[in-house]
Formats: sequence, structure tokens, C-alpha cells
Amino acid sequence: MPQSQPSSTEITQILARYVAESNFEDIPQPVREEAIRTFLNWLGCAVGGSHHETLDIAIAALAPFSGPAQASILGRNEKFDILHAALLNGISSHVFDFDDTHLRTVIHPAGPVVSALVAYAEYAPVTGKDFLHALILGIEVECRLGNSVTPEHYDVGWHITGTTGVWGAAAAIGKLLSLDTERMAWAFGLAATQPVGLREMFGTMTKSFHPGRAAQNGLTSALLAARGYTSSHQAIEAKRGWANVLSTRHDYAEITENLGSTFEILRNSYKPFACGIVIHPTIDGCIQIRNQETLAADQIQSVDVLVHPLVLELTGKLTPQTGLEGKFSVYHAAAAALIEGDGGEEQFSDRAVQDAGIIALRGRVKAVSSTSIASDEARISITLTDGRVIALHVPHAIGSVARPMSNSELENKFRGLTTSIVGAEKTAELIELCWKLESLEAVSQIATVASL
Amino acid sequence: MPQSQPSSTEITQILARYVAESNFEDIPQPVREEAIRTFLNWLGCAVGGSHHETLDIAIAALAPFSGPAQASILGRNEKFDILHAALLNGISSHVFDFDDTHLRTVIHPAGPVVSALVAYAEYAPVTGKDFLHALILGIEVECRLGNSVTPEHYDVGWHITGTTGVWGAAAAIGKLLSLDTERMAWAFGLAATQPVGLREMFGTMTKSFHPGRAAQNGLTSALLAARGYTSSHQAIEAKRGWANVLSTRHDYAEITENLGSTFEILRNSYKPFACGIVIHPTIDGCIQIRNQETLAADQIQSVDVLVHPLVLELTGKLTPQTGLEGKFSVYHAAAAALIEGDGGEEQFSDRAVQDAGIIALRGRVKAVSSTSIASDEARISITLTDGRVIALHVPHAIGSVARPMSNSELENKFRGLTTSIVGAEKTAELIELCWKLESLEAVSQIATVASL
Repeated sequence: MPQSQPSSTEITQILARYVAESNFEDIPQPVREEAIRTFLNWLGCAVGGSHHETLDIAIAALAPFSGPAQASILGRNEKFDILHAALLNGISSHVFDFDDTHLRTVIHPAGPVVSALVAYAEYAPVTGKDFLHALILGIEVECRLGNSVTPEHYDVGWHITGTTGVWGAAAAIGKLLSLDTERMAWAFGLAATQPVGLREMFGTMTKSFHPGRAAQNGLTSALLAARGYTSSHQAIEAKRGWANVLSTRHDYAEITENLGSTFEILRNSYKPFACGIVIHPTIDGCIQIRNQETLAADQIQSVDVLVHPLVLELTGKLTPQTGLEGKFSVYHAAAAALIEGDGGEEQFSDRAVQDAGIIALRGRVKAVSSTSIASDEARISITLTDGRVIALHVPHAIGSVARPMSNSELENKFRGLTTSIVGAEKTAELIELCWKLESLEAVSQIATVASL
Repeated sequence: MPQSQPSSTEITQILARYVAESNFEDIPQPVREEAIRTFLNWLGCAVGGSHHETLDIAIAALAPFSGPAQASILGRNEKFDILHAALLNGISSHVFDFDDTHLRTVIHPAGPVVSALVAYAEYAPVTGKDFLHALILGIEVECRLGNSVTPEHYDVGWHITGTTGVWGAAAAIGKLLSLDTERMAWAFGLAATQPVGLREMFGTMTKSFHPGRAAQNGLTSALLAARGYTSSHQAIEAKRGWANVLSTRHDYAEITENLGSTFEILRNSYKPFACGIVIHPTIDGCIQIRNQETLAADQIQSVDVLVHPLVLELTGKLTPQTGLEGKFSVYHAAAAALIEGDGGEEQFSDRAVQDAGIIALRGRVKAVSSTSIASDEARISITLTDGRVIALHVPHAIGSVARPMSNSELENKFRGLTTSIVGAEKTAELIELCWKLESLEAVSQIATVASL
């Protein structure tokens, strides 16, 4: 453990004071803009995932115990108390694995933080400015905690989104509640003592439970601390505190240095495609070729892709049977992208995986891996029945840090997720509300439009 | 990590199957009797702690979000949904640190398990037999998990009551819901992914939050699994499962061997006095002398106690100012026991610590430690003003494994905790209901009597 510069008994205090004393006016414009992009992306995912079986089951199980109808379940017509709403919206925002990623830590930052904020903002009036401020600070706390214990904490088996997400949600709601430094530290203590998420749960419904429960736990922590429920003042750095108990590595400088001058949300990224990030370069390239050439499937004799070794290790399934299995088949993903021009949830549905045209084409896709190819890179070569060869190099896939999704691409992703659920008109209205989030009098109107 | 006998990929399945298939008829009579004693002790603690400031704050913070009035907060007049009731009753049952202890692991077994069960039993009809069965199985799962990771898991900083308690509550409620082996394993997976409790929180209100939140999380886990919310089948033993992530030691034989033939609840113990266990021998001896001799304080010239070294290390405070500090003063505890004849919450109140008579006598108490004295042992010598010396050896304090509290002593403790809150009549009625728990048609009547 590297001992860091500030007295190592003050780490939690420094972080709590920063959140308690931060002013929105001091948040730079690019940070605010990225926060809006993060919010838009989260909102699309939450609405898009809202009719997944996972959410149906959670709602059926928990509805009998919900409090007053305080907050919306986005994309649906049920209303729950804010604690349950934070959990349920958090589940749906992660259920497609399509939400944002802080690449250094692999935290999905918005799930815990924004799910708590959106629920709370339906209970008490929250302006767009205060909402954005809380969102930025929540993600800052969450990702700094993550930076301080990366990679050992994740490597040993913690789902870092859930374990740091509780902190993020507590910080965000604590800011809305105007907690002073002492109470913010108590909220952190309550968050520290409720980590959520083992990686063993990946591949089951419990994975998307993690950001939801983290949102609910963080919200609960802030509400308790606001009333004077006491906790440790040294939740991070104490001998038996969060960092020592949950990680073999902790670099406290990651938490305390440059607070207020650097912002982790600027390192956030958004997935263009509804699958593991390793096949994104292939999908990206196939869509580019399709759009340039307007090819029909029967013109294609063979597709050769040269990819990073992880692609075949993780997504080498030749004959997927279900939509979920399709996410683990670079062959399916390439064929679906060439025929349908996208890599959204629709292209990873049971329908797409069982589509005769896609099945036929995927049989003509060959993938070869090479250590000379980077993880966000692909080389694609398509041989046509007329003998022509179309080759494309994707040096950095769309959605990578080097080539972030544009606002317009984020809007397209959003439309793909929400239109079938809330309709085109409300989808357009939601996109407009998101871009003017900072000037909204009451953020609750977004949840009103986003629910049924 | 010692590799254990059953295939190490089946640990969770074996435990889940045991709980799912256990029959009450196969539970031996002494186990049922100990379960009733565990329940009686828990009930007294929960009612006794119900007006502590910690609970007042939690109730004020969470009441706006509670669901229907499904379950009682024992000792009070509020009603909450069962998820909140499990949390709140769990907090009050631990707030005096007066609840039961499984000495090998230092788990307080009843808090998480019984708090969930009592809440659920007000929502759906539960017979005394089913309740006892679920209680026994819940504590079995909780303590076996604890045994498998003791002592490293606690030593590193986990509050083992919270981390294993989630499992216990999930098992108990899962049994009431008649989960099959697969769904019981899912409930365990959901429990595994929601551990509660860092030891850093000791000394703050967050400590008693741990058994409460564990009860709530375990109850939630079972409710979700019952509806088909999926999770891992190997939550304990997977590479990134509970045991590997939360402990450097795990002996799976502790979980799978002798299931159904040995019962951890038989190792449960109950505190006679409302303070750390190390001063119990001193208090025990002082009460015995007082009761034998009917001494007035001014007859006592000096009190000499010979104790285990931990006593002075942990409770060597000479001039405590508050009730809570009194718990860390062997001098105060001895003086209060000699004057008032007890070591209950009343003797560790601000009133008692500021009592002029007790203050005067504690100044005449001398404590010396010796490694020749065991931790449950004390030697007391009192010199009277008339020159007489009264000496007493306490080889094993009341409440130790070697000298368990009798049923009648448990009743006395119960009366001391509940009479001022629900009155003598209801106290007597509750004691009677507890002893006939196994034959009750509906356990809910206990909560009805125990609330206001």
C-alpha cells in the first residue's frame, strides 16, 4: 500500500468536505456537457430495458411492499416509493449492458447515481442545475473511489459498479440534501458498510440488481445521515474501513488530489452497440461498408475479419441459438450488422439470431485473431460474388475514448431504445429536455414524460 | 485454503438442498428449546431497545417511504411494510449490544434471522412450528457460513453478523416460502452479493444498522428468488463468490459436514449484563456478594478485583461521564452491581454513571489483572469498614458456555428490558407466548402484544 500525501486519517473528511462545499458555478462547461450526455445515455437505457423480464420479476416481487406512489418506473406505468424506484430504474438501466463505462475502472457510473437522483427528484423539487451538480459530484466520488482500488478490487471479484456506486449515490443525494461535511461523512460511512456486488453473479439477473441496489443503498444512506444517524468519520481509510477491507491496493492520492480541477466524468464513454465492447470494431466496420456500398446479402461471397485475440476468446460462438448467445458471436454480429446496419438490442434478439438470412451470411464470416490488432481495432475484407474485394480498416471503433459517440449518434441510440416503448413523439420530447437539462425548473418533468 | 471433501463446486447446492428439504420432525427437542430461548432473548432486546435515539432517527428518516402498515415496530406504535420492519426491529434488537452471541464466530445470530421472520409472520400466516423451523435453519446457515471463514473474515474487518446474517435471513424466509433447491440457491446468491457491515462502524449508530439491514436484505433476496429472479448456483464457492472474495480462509467442510445432525444454535449464548462480556465475571461476583450479605455501600471500605488482562485493556476507564462510557469502566460496573444488584441497561445509563453513591464507591474499587485468570473468571475481595473480608471466586461467569443463563434468568432479563415499555401484564403474556411458541397457530399474535 503506497502511503499518500495528505494525512491518511483525513481522506474521508477531504472528500466529504469537497462534496459539501462544491459550487455549481465552479464546474467547467465541458463537464456539464458530458454530464448531460451521460444522463441522456442513461435515460435511453433505463427506458429501453424497462420491459425486460428481469424488471417484470422484480416489480412483481416488491410491489406489495412499496410505499406511496412517489416516483415513476421509467418506460412503464407503475409508481413506487423513491427507494424502490431507485432500485428498479437502476436494474432496467443496466439490464442490456448498454449503459456508460468509465473505462479505467470499468465502473458503469450513471446506474447507481442517476437512478437515485431521478427518483428523488420526483419526491422533492430539484432544478436542472442542482441535478447536474449532484450527478457530477456523485460520479466523481464513485470513480475516484474506484481509481483508488483499481485493478485489485475488481480482480478479486467485486463488481465495482455496485461497491463504489453506493458512495456515488450517497454523495449525489447528500448534495441535494445540503449535508454538511460531518453528515456527508456519515452518509459515506453508511454507504461503505453496504457494498453491493460479486462478479460471480454475472450472467444472471443479479448483475443488473447491483447498480439498482447501490442506488437504493446510497439514497438510504443520505436520508439517514441527514436526520443525524451517526457513522464513522474515516470510512475510507480506517484500519477496518472500506479500502482496507475491500481491496489489497488503495492509493488515497487518487481520491484527494486535484479535487475540483479534474473531473472523472470526462473519461466516461458510451456503447454504440448492445454487446461486449470487444466486437464493437467489427460491427462498426461492417456498418460502414454496408452504408457505403448498399450491399445485398446475396452479393457477399465471404467476410474476413482480423481482430484482437480477446474477440475469439470471448465471442467465438459459431451457432448462437438465442439473442443473448448472439452477443457472444462475432459471426452473428458481423452478419447482422451487414444486413440490418446496426448492432442494437434488436440485432441481439431471438428474432435476429433465428433470421434465415443472417444465419446464411454468418456461415460465410471467417474471423482470425492477431496480437498485432488493438482491442478497439479491426480489419475487414469482404469478397463479393462478382469478384470485387472491399477492405476497411477500423483503427478505433466508435464509442472508444479516441472516437467518442457524437451527440447525434447518442440521439440515434436513444431513439433505438425508447421509440418502441414511449413512441416517437415522447422520444423527441425527451431528447429535447435532456439537452436543456441545465435550465429546467423541475427535473421531475423528464420522468413524467419517460413513463407511461 | 484447505480444499475440502465434497466436490468444491457443490457447496452452495448442498446447503440449499438441506434447507429446502429439512423437515421439522427431524429437529431434536433440545434444539427446539434453545431456539425458543434465542427467540425470547431477541424479543426482550428488540422491545427494550425500541425507544433508543438510534431507532427514533431511523424511523423519522424512513417513514415517508414505507409501504402498507404490514408489520409492527416492537415496543412502539408505528407500523411499516415488512422490509422496513425487518430493518427497524433488527436495529432495536442490537442497539444495547445485549443480544445473543455465537461465541466461536461472535455472530449475533438472532438479529438478522428473527427480525426478518417476525416481520414476515405479520404479513402471511406462519405457525409456531414453521417459525421455529425457519429460525433454526436460518441460524444454522448463518453460523456455518461464519464457521467456514472464522477468524480471518472478522479479523480483516467485516462485522460478521451482517455479512452472514443476510444468508441466515434469506434461508429462514426462503424456508417459509417453500423455495426449492434452485430458488434457495438463487436467494443465497442474492444474499451473497449484499453483505453488510464493516467493523469500523462500531461505536456509532451504524453498528446496529448491520443486523437490521442484513434482515432486510435477506428477506428481499428470498422474495425475489421466489418469483424467479435468477442468481448464481455457486454463490459460496465460486472463484469470485462470497468465500473467496470476503475471506482469506474458507473451510467448506464447516458448511457441509453433519448437516441435520449438529445444530449451531446449541452453541448460542445470552448476555446477562448490558455491556462487553469481559466485565461479566466481575458484575456476576459483585451481585452474588451483595445478595448474600445485603451490604450497604457505606459498609464497604474497599473492593479488590482480580481479572483477565483484557478487562483493564478494554474497560479500564476510571471516571466515566456517560452511560455509554460506563460500559467501559470495570470500576463503575462493580460499584453499580454492588449498590443496585444488576448490570442492566439501567446501570449503564447516564443516571447511574452520575449517581453520587455509585461514584463514591467506584473510587474505592481497585482492579488488578493477571494472566492466570481466564476471560470468564474473576476473584473478588471486599474489605468492610468493620474489618471483615468477604472473598468470592467466580470460576465461570453467568452467561458463559459453562454456565448458561437458566430460563428463569432469561425471564428476569426479559422483564428488565420490556416492563417499562409494554407494562408488567403484557410482559408476562409475552413470556408465556414465547414458551409455547411451538404450538402457536399464528406467530403474529406475539408482535401484536409486543407493540403499543
